[in-house]
Amino acid sequence: MLNLFYVPETCALASHIALEEAGAKFETTRLSFSSDDQKKPEFLAINPKGRVPALVTADGVITETPAILAFVAQSFPDARLAPLGDLIAFAKVQAFNSYLCSTVHVAHAHRMRGYRWVDDPSAIKEMQRKAPEAVGACFEVIERGMAQGQWVMGDIYTICDPYLFTLARWLEADGVDLERLPKVRDHRRRMYERPAVRNALEEERI
Amino acid sequence: MLNLFYVPETCALASHIALEEAGAKFETTRLSFSSDDQKKPEFLAINPKGRVPALVTADGVITETPAILAFVAQSFPDARLAPLGDLIAFAKVQAFNSYLCSTVHVAHAHRMRGYRWVDDPSAIKEMQRKAPEAVGACFEVIERGMAQGQWVMGDIYTICDPYLFTLARWLEADGVDLERLPKVRDHRRRMYERPAVRNALEEERI
Repeated sequence: MLNLFYVPETCALASHIALEEAGAKFETTRLSFSSDDQKKPEFLAINPKGRVPALVTADGVITETPAILAFVAQSFPDARLAPLGDLIAFAKVQAFNSYLCSTVHVAHAHRMRGYRWVDDPSAIKEMQRKAPEAVGACFEVIERGMAQGQWVMGDIYTICDPYLFTLARWLEADGVDLERLPKVRDHRRRMYERPAVRNALEEERI
Repeated sequence: MLNLFYVPETCALASHIALEEAGAKFETTRLSFSSDDQKKPEFLAINPKGRVPALVTADGVITETPAILAFVAQSFPDARLAPLGDLIAFAKVQAFNSYLCSTVHVAHAHRMRGYRWVDDPSAIKEMQRKAPEAVGACFEVIERGMAQGQWVMGDIYTICDPYLFTLARWLEADGVDLERLPKVRDHRRRMYERPAVRNALEEERI
């Protein structure tokens, strides 16, 4: 059976929601950053990068949110979580998720994980100071680019939606003014109404 | 016809090589950072994010390297650039490329594009100082994880290979000791022997 390794309040929520949306049979294993579970040998044997999410399958481990999301969409085609039959549309889904992981999540990470890129405490403070501007600029790109319709890709719900939702939940803590992002804000509100989202959040509740 | 917008010496090279490997009919359009082409209205109309690569197709524009690479593999299945029929194997390809874009390329970017995340010049210097360590740590994860065989995924050549090659070309400038990375170094050497790689590099030559 699939087993999703996650830490609450991380980007692993996107994969968790997608598995719920897919109607997948899966287990979850909760790790804790405060116990440094992600650095323990038993987890490094699963994901040598020491990061969540990691999805354990019967045939191997899948890491990295965009890869897990596309895998879920492809493995449960009846759930229609991606336009699998339309290569351009699927590529646009992948491009959106790639932007989230490589640019949006990275901008956010400078508020809390600056030690990845600098050692000096004053440089870490400089990163924290600029994070609202950097994250805000990313979300303005998303706001301007969002299709007409309820979801990121327009009228169809896809694996882009739980991922955007997951990062958008951090906007207040990142110091970004939600008033500048009405489409993102409304999207987030709609996401909270979905049973799959409620189920995932309920299970992740600390 | 496909048209790849690129800047020489950027990650767009990975998509360029993949198109060559696929035997695709495509054109290229070279932009220049020194002329700020990527910020001009005509390019922002193609990619509002102002970044390369961007692949213009008859049905829309695809951005972000992992999305373009998967699109090329799916669009030219006879070239066998990804294990399309094996969902787990395809997910592992995607996970590798996602790691490259979200972690490896990001570590590298702190050497040259620190202004994205801080304003203070001394903080930018701190980023530059740590870049060799941060990039080196990423490549050690790759080195340890590389499969037996000639290519990233083992015996089959995939869209992971041109992407790894592209970022590995920056290792000396990033200050990383290649001696610590014999598999990555040998992979890079093998890549230089491929006609598709030579063609792409020849065309991108400044």
